[in-house]
Amino acid sequence: MKITASVFLVMLVAFAAPWAMVSSGAEQEAQRKMTKEDVDRLMTELSNWGRWGKEDQLGAVNLITEAKRKQAAALVKEGFSVSLARDTEKERAEDNQSPYEHTMTMSGVNNRAQFSMDAFRVSYHGYQHTHLDALCHMFWNGKMYNGFPQEEVTKKGAAKLAIQNLKQGVFTRGVLMDVPRLKGVKYLEPGTPIYPEDLEAWEKKAGLKLTAGDAVFIRTGRWARRAEKGPWNISVNSAGLHASCAKWLKARDVALLGSDAASDVIPSGVEGLMLPIHQLALIALGVNLFDNCDLEPLSEAAAKRKRWEFLLTAAPIPLTGGTGSPLNPIATF
Amino acid sequence: MKITASVFLVMLVAFAAPWAMVSSGAEQEAQRKMTKEDVDRLMTELSNWGRWGKEDQLGAVNLITEAKRKQAAALVKEGFSVSLARDTEKERAEDNQSPYEHTMTMSGVNNRAQFSMDAFRVSYHGYQHTHLDALCHMFWNGKMYNGFPQEEVTKKGAAKLAIQNLKQGVFTRGVLMDVPRLKGVKYLEPGTPIYPEDLEAWEKKAGLKLTAGDAVFIRTGRWARRAEKGPWNISVNSAGLHASCAKWLKARDVALLGSDAASDVIPSGVEGLMLPIHQLALIALGVNLFDNCDLEPLSEAAAKRKRWEFLLTAAPIPLTGGTGSPLNPIATF
Amino acid sequence: MKITASVFLVMLVAFAAPWAMVSSGAEQEAQRKMTKEDVDRLMTELSNWGRWGKEDQLGAVNLITEAKRKQAAALVKEGFSVSLARDTEKERAEDNQSPYEHTMTMSGVNNRAQFSMDAFRVSYHGYQHTHLDALCHMFWNGKMYNGFPQEEVTKKGAAKLAIQNLKQGVFTRGVLMDVPRLKGVKYLEPGTPIYPEDLEAWEKKAGLKLTAGDAVFIRTGRWARRAEKGPWNISVNSAGLHASCAKWLKARDVALLGSDAASDVIPSGVEGLMLPIHQLALIALGVNLFDNCDLEPLSEAAAKRKRWEFLLTAAPIPLTGGTGSPLNPIATF
Amino acid sequence: MKITASVFLVMLVAFAAPWAMVSSGAEQEAQRKMTKEDVDRLMTELSNWGRWGKEDQLGAVNLITEAKRKQAAALVKEGFSVSLARDTEKERAEDNQSPYEHTMTMSGVNNRAQFSMDAFRVSYHGYQHTHLDALCHMFWNGKMYNGFPQEEVTKKGAAKLAIQNLKQGVFTRGVLMDVPRLKGVKYLEPGTPIYPEDLEAWEKKAGLKLTAGDAVFIRTGRWARRAEKGPWNISVNSAGLHASCAKWLKARDVALLGSDAASDVIPSGVEGLMLPIHQLALIALGVNLFDNCDLEPLSEAAAKRKRWEFLLTAAPIPLTGGTGSPLNPIATF
Repeated sequence: MKITASVFLVMLVAFAAPWAMVSSGAEQEAQRKMTKEDVDRLMTELSNWGRWGKEDQLGAVNLITEAKRKQAAALVKEGFSVSLARDTEKERAEDNQSPYEHTMTMSGVNNRAQFSMDAFRVSYHGYQHTHLDALCHMFWNGKMYNGFPQEEVTKKGAAKLAIQNLKQGVFTRGVLMDVPRLKGVKYLEPGTPIYPEDLEAWEKKAGLKLTAGDAVFIRTGRWARRAEKGPWNISVNSAGLHASCAKWLKARDVALLGSDAASDVIPSGVEGLMLPIHQLALIALGVNLFDNCDLEPLSEAAAKRKRWEFLLTAAPIPLTGGTGSPLNPIATF
Repeated sequence: MKITASVFLVMLVAFAAPWAMVSSGAEQEAQRKMTKEDVDRLMTELSNWGRWGKEDQLGAVNLITEAKRKQAAALVKEGFSVSLARDTEKERAEDNQSPYEHTMTMSGVNNRAQFSMDAFRVSYHGYQHTHLDALCHMFWNGKMYNGFPQEEVTKKGAAKLAIQNLKQGVFTRGVLMDVPRLKGVKYLEPGTPIYPEDLEAWEKKAGLKLTAGDAVFIRTGRWARRAEKGPWNISVNSAGLHASCAKWLKARDVALLGSDAASDVIPSGVEGLMLPIHQLALIALGVNLFDNCDLEPLSEAAAKRKRWEFLLTAAPIPLTGGTGSPLNPIATF
Repeated sequence: MKITASVFLVMLVAFAAPWAMVSSGAEQEAQRKMTKEDVDRLMTELSNWGRWGKEDQLGAVNLITEAKRKQAAALVKEGFSVSLARDTEKERAEDNQSPYEHTMTMSGVNNRAQFSMDAFRVSYHGYQHTHLDALCHMFWNGKMYNGFPQEEVTKKGAAKLAIQNLKQGVFTRGVLMDVPRLKGVKYLEPGTPIYPEDLEAWEKKAGLKLTAGDAVFIRTGRWARRAEKGPWNISVNSAGLHASCAKWLKARDVALLGSDAASDVIPSGVEGLMLPIHQLALIALGVNLFDNCDLEPLSEAAAKRKRWEFLLTAAPIPLTGGTGSPLNPIATF
Repeated sequence: MKITASVFLVMLVAFAAPWAMVSSGAEQEAQRKMTKEDVDRLMTELSNWGRWGKEDQLGAVNLITEAKRKQAAALVKEGFSVSLARDTEKERAEDNQSPYEHTMTMSGVNNRAQFSMDAFRVSYHGYQHTHLDALCHMFWNGKMYNGFPQEEVTKKGAAKLAIQNLKQGVFTRGVLMDVPRLKGVKYLEPGTPIYPEDLEAWEKKAGLKLTAGDAVFIRTGRWARRAEKGPWNISVNSAGLHASCAKWLKARDVALLGSDAASDVIPSGVEGLMLPIHQLALIALGVNLFDNCDLEPLSEAAAKRKRWEFLLTAAPIPLTGGTGSPLNPIATF
């Protein structure tokens, strides 16, 4: 048996969504209207397939050169680090269908041995746990990034594009795009789309420009809203990037993309596609995605310093054949 | 039912150990002889309890100041990164009693949906998986680091000294102490103790000296030996630091200690104590331990550059109440 | 990231449901119309709270007396057994949000040891795995069966009404109510309600009558339909008992109730209640529920013998504090 | 890091074992002395390979005919059931290297939804959890029961001899052989071998004789001793059947064998073989094994009734490809 609340919310949202979209900018929405065909076209137009060779499995991480890494290290002016990970949530909630299962197999109570021990199990995909999506996480017309067939992903794990390809870690310039701060609100309402103009407005306000190889983090204020109003079903109602941002991200040659939810605005506004940004990033661009980052402390730290760039370090657990990994990305100023 | 081989090996080792120790330096051993009482005395003598306040839960990580972090960032001369993590081992072996349990819950085969997914479970302590021990992992006379009672660790998790205290990550100078290279061998034989003289000889050879706040990695060549000879029961026979090194580590004010096994030489040579280095580091010094790092690629990268220092970044999954975390430490040159 | 298909189906169903209900018997539905208030009234009217004492945690299982067990054993005329469990499904599907995670930790390939081993993890509730719900699985106005407060169920487990109360197993007369066979169809369409008249018609056709202490299994043909048409989202669209059947089940003094889905018709037809049968059975009657049984082989075995009663044996894993258990119920003729 | 106590105990036992065996019946031991060659010979001599066809995967369960099942049902004189399963142990101990990992993913505290939920993970083999070994659990010279090669057991699961072969459950006469009661002690000391004479003496005392198709349970009193003295490392020191009993079990044509530990006496007394009874039963005879049953309540119930036979019902979770299953066997008198 499953919880009823989730299903009811889904129904509610299903009915409410059209109205919600109208209310959050009907005209802009009309201009921005994209269809599944438009996205299909972008899958080719923006494609990085073959750009780093036919056998390449790294994708846009290739844009992080040694020079880029040195520049990123030079961003450490102060030696202050802040985590972009959420604490591990262990209880089911509207936005946590699969809590961390953490078991103390040896505690300190009535224990004459010298050690405490624990174990944990996690199904890290979804809309709660901070994690990095591997390029094998998503398919389109039977293919993954660089044209690898989805059949490479079997019960044994992903033979191509698995997360252990990022075993050497991510070390690059990180940039926070703080959209609520741009708009002068605490957080965006669920369903609010973010457009390329917003990103450019933020660049202007922050006084920087994205450059090739950056790791970009889009703050929607999701966790601030959750702290205030409680959890909601992010899988059907989330602020995030509109599909039209994909082109912009390609123009800037972003290496990695992250968000405090799942990057995509949901509903996407593109009929028949739940997560066009996911699809375009993971499959066409070869851009790995950080989902469900906690960007609240980073937002505060950045604002205090008026610096929106930093050294970003992140290293997935090299889970052989894995479709991603929970991890703890760190911003160092 | 359990595997027989492990038990037989244990028996073998139990019988063989005295002989092994004699053969690997009988006289030196005699001089170095330490008793449980000696270690008990060191628990007080080397103690950092109270050094950073009565409520401190960070321990020697306090030695990593912002200045130290800046200096560490400045070690990035080249922008080359190398992982210190092992790939996740999924099959039982002599040194892997608790393999990663990795399950593809959605593969690409016969899948008309757009996503692949997986989940994993890990009991990361032990002698196989790369992980970081939290300060709550070990008890001594009912206490943990800074005097916290072991009863703080309950079935709900550790209320004190849990791994999420290191949520902001480790960012400091890392130093590799490559003992096999010092001794001109491919790897140390299991049971070989490493003494303070060895560490000093390495400092001399490497042309550097440990300084306060460093993260030190001791290579024994364990994985090179495993690749050549197959796995063996590390829990009863491992090269590593002799108990007398604790004093030396305190003198250098090391912030973190790591190894390609579990830091301790096993058998420890101290009657009645399995892991005196673990005990002294985690409890007296407040030094978190990286266990089972893969130091082979690092050894190669360092030797090629003739540089044994680097920026070390490592960030545990902030498992609330956890006694440690699997993770992927990264050295950047 | 999560699969899109599920969400779309939910939306579809949310829109389609009113129409579906109309088409599957508009008039009957109108007569049968029950409100949340009607169900609330039944929660008291049908209540077994206090019937077996204030401290009772067994509920309707008390109806299985030693005499009943002997009679049940006497139903074994032939010595033929058939399982009511599904094979463990390991891949995500519309009706399997949480597949069995089964890991071979030691296989026979390249294994010089003598043993193979495995481990598994299961979140057994939901709409796929055959399991038994404990009485602590559901709350109503802060209470569970017999008035125990829901706060008895903590992170440590259920202090009351946990599954280990059924540790001695279920051993009683089982009766199959084969509704598709009654109606001359292979399976009921999702959303089809089953009414008390249907149950009585089946009693007549089968030539038996339920008696106190029986374990009753309601076949909807769910697995036959799944084999033919593929999985669908049972959590929003399932054939099953209409809420009005609760009174009938109480009149017959049924000890346990099972089904090939989750017993309830979904949508329930009672506004504001997802699973009124679950609520009335688990909380008011103290009737444990077998969910997701495979009743196809039983249906065949029973029809072949023209016998719809049998010895039912079922024993949960006595998971201390558990809210239920996966298990393998057996019918013996 | 792992607990030290276990390793020390192993060492202790390794040294102590020869003495222990001498003290517990030196002469008898000498007469009974078996070598690995003797056991190898028995592997052929007692073999049931081919007895039920070349493709047979059921093994000795074939001995449970429909007639046998009817006779077993007729043993239910009273309608009293008792579980042979241990409650699930969740904390590490000397005899519990792999505790049940049970997680409440939704409790009743601060929960406005209507449901509580949990999940669990278990590595059920070993010396703590009540479980049934499948015939694929053990190899000998590259083969399993009936000559199937061990390579049939891959990372995907066992293609032959997996536990789901017993999906229809076990339903037969059960017999308790209460060796401590025979010897007038509360429990046997660890390491005590049980010989065929003991089994025959018990038959005489109990006034019954094993017949083809029986499920036989050997009580050593392990749990009584554990309750009194605390856990010890069963994997190296356990009372149980001496290898010479295999011939006797074949002569009686037993269908299943169970025990409150792992059936075998440990140390086995056969040099070079840890678990000869396991090997002979699972591989040569095709007899599935119930490990770690709780036989204390059964012993009491049987003694009270002076009846040592009963209906035994047990049904594994049909884990596709599994090497066994946790389960809850039930004795009904």
